[in-house]
Amino acid sequence: MASLTPLKDIGEFALIRRLQQKINLRQPSTVLGIGDDAAILAPAAGQEVVVSTDLLVEGIHFDLMFCPLRHLGYKAVAVNVSDIAAMNAVPTQIVVGLSTGPRLTVEAIEELYEGMRLACEAYKVDLVGGDTTSSRGGLTISITALGQVEAGKAVRRSGGKPTDLLCVSGDLGGAFLGLQVLEREKQAFLADPETQPELGSYEYVVQRQLKPEARLDIVHELRELGVTPTSMIDISDGLASEVMHLCAGSGTGARVFSEYLPLANPTLEAAAEFNLDPITCALNGGEDYELLFTVPVTDHAKIKNHPDITIIGHLTEKEDAVNLITKGGQAVPLQAQGWTAF
Amino acid sequence: MASLTPLKDIGEFALIRRLQQKINLRQPSTVLGIGDDAAILAPAAGQEVVVSTDLLVEGIHFDLMFCPLRHLGYKAVAVNVSDIAAMNAVPTQIVVGLSTGPRLTVEAIEELYEGMRLACEAYKVDLVGGDTTSSRGGLTISITALGQVEAGKAVRRSGGKPTDLLCVSGDLGGAFLGLQVLEREKQAFLADPETQPELGSYEYVVQRQLKPEARLDIVHELRELGVTPTSMIDISDGLASEVMHLCAGSGTGARVFSEYLPLANPTLEAAAEFNLDPITCALNGGEDYELLFTVPVTDHAKIKNHPDITIIGHLTEKEDAVNLITKGGQAVPLQAQGWTAF
Repeated sequence: MASLTPLKDIGEFALIRRLQQKINLRQPSTVLGIGDDAAILAPAAGQEVVVSTDLLVEGIHFDLMFCPLRHLGYKAVAVNVSDIAAMNAVPTQIVVGLSTGPRLTVEAIEELYEGMRLACEAYKVDLVGGDTTSSRGGLTISITALGQVEAGKAVRRSGGKPTDLLCVSGDLGGAFLGLQVLEREKQAFLADPETQPELGSYEYVVQRQLKPEARLDIVHELRELGVTPTSMIDISDGLASEVMHLCAGSGTGARVFSEYLPLANPTLEAAAEFNLDPITCALNGGEDYELLFTVPVTDHAKIKNHPDITIIGHLTEKEDAVNLITKGGQAVPLQAQGWTAF
Repeated sequence: MASLTPLKDIGEFALIRRLQQKINLRQPSTVLGIGDDAAILAPAAGQEVVVSTDLLVEGIHFDLMFCPLRHLGYKAVAVNVSDIAAMNAVPTQIVVGLSTGPRLTVEAIEELYEGMRLACEAYKVDLVGGDTTSSRGGLTISITALGQVEAGKAVRRSGGKPTDLLCVSGDLGGAFLGLQVLEREKQAFLADPETQPELGSYEYVVQRQLKPEARLDIVHELRELGVTPTSMIDISDGLASEVMHLCAGSGTGARVFSEYLPLANPTLEAAAEFNLDPITCALNGGEDYELLFTVPVTDHAKIKNHPDITIIGHLTEKEDAVNLITKGGQAVPLQAQGWTAF
């Protein structure tokens, strides 16, 4: 086993130098990256800048017992890129704040940054600034992402109109079931540390939990199809909560058809095994990081055959409220359980 | 006493709505603030964007026992604005990440945000985004600040040349002595909770610790004087460490004259009482958030009479190293103790 270096042995400046060496800059808008009081960016002419920030807190958003640091680093970047994508923008830079207790070694922090570096590579994002400090508690990762979008072309939550089609990318509920699998394996391990984890048949849902991808591909594909969503939001807290946000922002109601919700086979299988309703997992599970968006009904032909976009319903007048339409045709008011982390 | 609301009683969404109501937007470059997946900014034509991020962690950077939440909120914004000022840029927006344990009430978080709001007002900065979450540990505040500067006019750490004059704004060492006073009062309080704090004669140094100001005024005044610093950095970790950073970036040495270091009278008095060398407090104390910058020697006449700028030495060839010149004329290599928080 390679020797492990306590953080206090090298100090903050040396750690930053070590991490900095591995960073490549690839965005034309990055004038100056890490190493000064601030990074310098030169957004392209005619572009607006979008900015979003997210905190990931140990014990609340992740459990280091089953979340490998490299995956965690990747996910931390992906969830921020997802917010940028949800504005119809392309991510360009991130800055990273990291606070960690003495438990994590230099090598562990490097693993975490390696995951971030891989995500930056995948999404063509430059890591241009950071702050690394100690804490008395666990690990906290704070990422702020910047992106660019043609002036006036950012898509908000508020632009949806009654009759607009309500669409989601990918499939839902998987990340939540992946978490159930990981929690179960953790309990088994705690009961008997000799137990080998059995994740084989759950690979898909576990992957959805540990290494979600931001749907930047959908942003690019919609552009190629000539479709500009009227409103958009990313699905971090579960579909129900996001539909409520979108409708509140747009001043509309909605009809969401439960039988149209996209559920992958491994998700259905895992739900059956855990005796959970897959529809509930999709509505309230969260962490799928898919995109929820609306398009005018006149764009129906352009998207109906897209293999990775599903039309799950449509917006209505506000008075009609936000309803889930069951298979039997019954309208049930949608509950935004969302995410109350307090 | 007004009733206090546990955070869990209102949840994240309601807390954000409560905080959001108090936010005013004043920057012309802010197109959309809090409330969507990301904020939308439209930097003015010909401007570059600077971005910097900082974490403040309870137990490491602040002690809630003597740091009022409103001051803490103010300081969290000020230290980020200081980084933007150190680039010769004007701050425009911030985004805030906050994680807190169940100990803090809704009213406490509102106090913290009130401090941030006051700082945003003072520095004409818009709070455009945030993430608020729980933690199992203490309070962590993560702020990312954005600013703007005319393209090509950002001042880096790397532009200093031998013979350039080394200047600081304001005075040094006060924040460190303020911390000593607060720590002493804390110990007195822990020993006897009936003790009333005696901060009267220490008001200046305590203020320097609890409510530092970013020297944005100096950035504006240098512009009015027609002086563009060749290099600049803000003094967060103590003068010695920052001089070393600036010299490393610029590829120079420096001579810093101890007798020229600006020390306020209350700082000298507090140092005497605590039996500390005020020069050492200035060199290694940190948290003064003044600006350290260099100007060509030809600008001497323009700055020599500025009441709030002190010339403390000059840059030299790299081979001459970074030296403190004592009152007796002796050259002592400067030690960058800086800040190793691990």
